[in-house]
Amino acid sequence: MAHIDTGNDAPGIRGLMQFRPETAKPLNELVEVLLRDDNSLSRGERELIASYVSKLNDCAYCSTSHGAYAALQLDGGWAVVDDVWTDPSGAPVSDKMRALLGIAGRVQQGGKSVTEADVTAARAAGATDVEIHDTVLIAAAFCMYNRYVDGLGTFAPPGRASYEERGKAIVEHGYRALNAMLASPPPST
Amino acid sequence: MAHIDTGNDAPGIRGLMQFRPETAKPLNELVEVLLRDDNSLSRGERELIASYVSKLNDCAYCSTSHGAYAALQLDGGWAVVDDVWTDPSGAPVSDKMRALLGIAGRVQQGGKSVTEADVTAARAAGATDVEIHDTVLIAAAFCMYNRYVDGLGTFAPPGRASYEERGKAIVEHGYRALNAMLASPPPST
Repeated sequence: MAHIDTGNDAPGIRGLMQFRPETAKPLNELVEVLLRDDNSLSRGERELIASYVSKLNDCAYCSTSHGAYAALQLDGGWAVVDDVWTDPSGAPVSDKMRALLGIAGRVQQGGKSVTEADVTAARAAGATDVEIHDTVLIAAAFCMYNRYVDGLGTFAPPGRASYEERGKAIVEHGYRALNAMLASPPPST
Repeated sequence: MAHIDTGNDAPGIRGLMQFRPETAKPLNELVEVLLRDDNSLSRGERELIASYVSKLNDCAYCSTSHGAYAALQLDGGWAVVDDVWTDPSGAPVSDKMRALLGIAGRVQQGGKSVTEADVTAARAAGATDVEIHDTVLIAAAFCMYNRYVDGLGTFAPPGRASYEERGKAIVEHGYRALNAMLASPPPST
């Protein structure tokens, strides 16, 4: 049970968003811009960064959600996600993604953990300034979402099946579409 | 110098927002809802939570900015902010604020650091579920803003004067107003 009475039984961030639609709207807008709007990093790659940071923060709801969304959009599916969670340095991703995941891991520890050498390495592997910027902000944003979800003690369903099911709708319609549902929330399931 | 070339010399998050207005918009919208929209916590109290978390994260730009905005809107000004930064348990704030600052400090450490006892104590001091929710989300959000600002190695002007000067405009016009300026950024200063 969550630390507060959300008035619904939706899991994770979904229950919090129904409880407080005013804050849900910019939160959904931010994640849509970061993970789905036009970008030289693919949607799968950006979801992978989000799920990796969430795993480092030990946030079951966010790591499994965004792991599922990454798996649905990446060649290799869950196997790539599991490998990144274990150790990005040995995972089957591009050199550029490996360097960006390294930066994301630094950001998870704290902003000042990112070094000029980390950024130089990412640039040498082909990362642009926008990609470096977006990686830092995605990692920072998931340090927020993870703390929001776990700081209020929300419930994370076990397993992966429910996240994969929800992932199909996210992949098709995105996060921004969730805001339209907040005005008249459906019966919680 | 920042880790990336922002194409401007604005300090802290301001330079990043000019570099990437697409992400700036939801970031400004979120902080406006959290720190300025209608709430049973005053604007000064919410800025105090933001500056306290930023101080714990050792983010000079954000702690001084939001410290200045809190000081401008709280009876007691900077003295209250300085006392909270030193130790909220001895600061001249209400019992409710002291309990909420305690929760914010837990969130800074990680979402799972918040205990049922922390929440029970806040409730006993008069905090509502919305106030507890908003405190957790403000603290979580500043774990994002701080990592964003420091993870990209931005510049923080020394002293407090420039932050106080900017604070007057923030207190009068808010954060949402900054988005209107992103479409046609003024010459950076």
